[in-house]
Amino acid sequence: MNPGDFDPWMRSELQAVEAALELHVRADAPADLGEAMRYGVLDGGKRLRPLLVLAAAQAVDGHREAALRAACAVELIHAYSLIHDDMPCMDNDVLRRGKPTVHVRYGEAAAMLAGDAMQALAFEVLTPEDDVVSPALQARLVRLLSRAAGVQGMAGGQAIDLANVGRQLDEATLQDMHRRKTGALLQASVLMGAACGNTTPAAWQALEAYGAAIGLAFQVVDDILDVTQASETLGKTAGKDAYANKPTYVSLLGLDGARARALALHEAAHAALRACELPGASALALLADRVVERQS
Amino acid sequence: MNPGDFDPWMRSELQAVEAALELHVRADAPADLGEAMRYGVLDGGKRLRPLLVLAAAQAVDGHREAALRAACAVELIHAYSLIHDDMPCMDNDVLRRGKPTVHVRYGEAAAMLAGDAMQALAFEVLTPEDDVVSPALQARLVRLLSRAAGVQGMAGGQAIDLANVGRQLDEATLQDMHRRKTGALLQASVLMGAACGNTTPAAWQALEAYGAAIGLAFQVVDDILDVTQASETLGKTAGKDAYANKPTYVSLLGLDGARARALALHEAAHAALRACELPGASALALLADRVVERQS
Repeated sequence: MNPGDFDPWMRSELQAVEAALELHVRADAPADLGEAMRYGVLDGGKRLRPLLVLAAAQAVDGHREAALRAACAVELIHAYSLIHDDMPCMDNDVLRRGKPTVHVRYGEAAAMLAGDAMQALAFEVLTPEDDVVSPALQARLVRLLSRAAGVQGMAGGQAIDLANVGRQLDEATLQDMHRRKTGALLQASVLMGAACGNTTPAAWQALEAYGAAIGLAFQVVDDILDVTQASETLGKTAGKDAYANKPTYVSLLGLDGARARALALHEAAHAALRACELPGASALALLADRVVERQS
Repeated sequence: MNPGDFDPWMRSELQAVEAALELHVRADAPADLGEAMRYGVLDGGKRLRPLLVLAAAQAVDGHREAALRAACAVELIHAYSLIHDDMPCMDNDVLRRGKPTVHVRYGEAAAMLAGDAMQALAFEVLTPEDDVVSPALQARLVRLLSRAAGVQGMAGGQAIDLANVGRQLDEATLQDMHRRKTGALLQASVLMGAACGNTTPAAWQALEAYGAAIGLAFQVVDDILDVTQASETLGKTAGKDAYANKPTYVSLLGLDGARARALALHEAAHAALRACELPGASALALLADRVVERQS
């Protein structure tokens, strides 16, 4: 893929993901459950995780239907985690992507249920009744996603986060938290895509390294943007105060240190891609650039 | 199995389930996540769902390791749903099984996370890395469990419940609610056990009917016990007032009508077992008796 082909590829894949999510997240679920789920997952977000799945699947010439299901499943897990995170007992956020959060719109009970149902739906989507996707691949995708969502991954990272609000963490603990909280699902996205095709053990390992690098880079950039965006808004170097209660890469390394870290991780992601020697990996390379260069 | 062998069988299976849950729900998860999960699922409950899995697996001479994993997975889903149900935004219960509920003990955020992580863990448990359980069976078990837990099952039933507090429902809606809310997971328990062995299509269908019958019987008996237990405590026929805000089989059919319904479902369960013609189904038959005759 030439760099100029990336944007059309991305637009086309985003449309495919949106259409698939439309199909899987049905409006006719009981009461307003379907509506709340659709509100929480459709028409929003950068869809980075689905794009990683589809870019990795492309790199290994993977099974298209399986990859599209994996893309939807990982986005459902991500979206459910945002709904639960936004609730009053967690971050108590009332706005997301410019819209009232799910619990503001539908009530807390419905928001919790919608999140719960979306997690179950992710695993439904991975295990279709027909055998278009082989049972072995179905099981492998469930294995990757459930581990990334659970105690070893996202939920475990959130528990560390929750237990450490207001404390300064050392870098090892901060990294462990982020590797689980956001990194595990981003890495799993890459690996789920890769699982849809054939890879050598060496290529798999290299894709694991790529996923780990961009997973962490994503969080470092997030921490940087939190500060620099606030600066633009406030007209001064904000951040220290705003984030005094939350350990971040910026609070730990400083803004310049965090920027250097993001660049090092970006380089590590590219090095891993070179090591995996997959001619179709250019979309993954360009996604790594987007993760680090993004402005929002 | 002779009726006299049932209690020793049950005790031995309960021990096996408890030991397996001990292994799967690890204490070393980050922060107090592991502790909260263990608090929510170990040492408590009748373990009806695991027993149904194991009894059905016995009826079809099913794969032992797969059945034990399925038993743990379905109990994890059940236990997570109780943790979330008990939270202030849902039923706001402070006691369960004589202990403070998880959110009272660990806080709301930790309770929500523990439930979320338990749902992910259920699917982890069903998809072990080794191939002791065949990938095809892994995928089939995930398929059964995820559908029973999601919008077509438990979460969908809870949404109907939530939307109808304080309203009198007609019997069809009440039945639809319960078939999803509690019935789907009980039926899935039977089918997951059956999936661990070989069944004819006719036997599978009969086990579906058995699972549907005891799934609904369980709820009818629950509604009866809610009233009769309250009566014993209060020394008068309570229930009408206590449950004015919640549609139940007793409020719909009256106490005698509900008892007649429970007996009819009990008979339907036994008829289904006779139809499936499995010589090893006696534990399922005895479990049906327990479900209807239980006093708590």
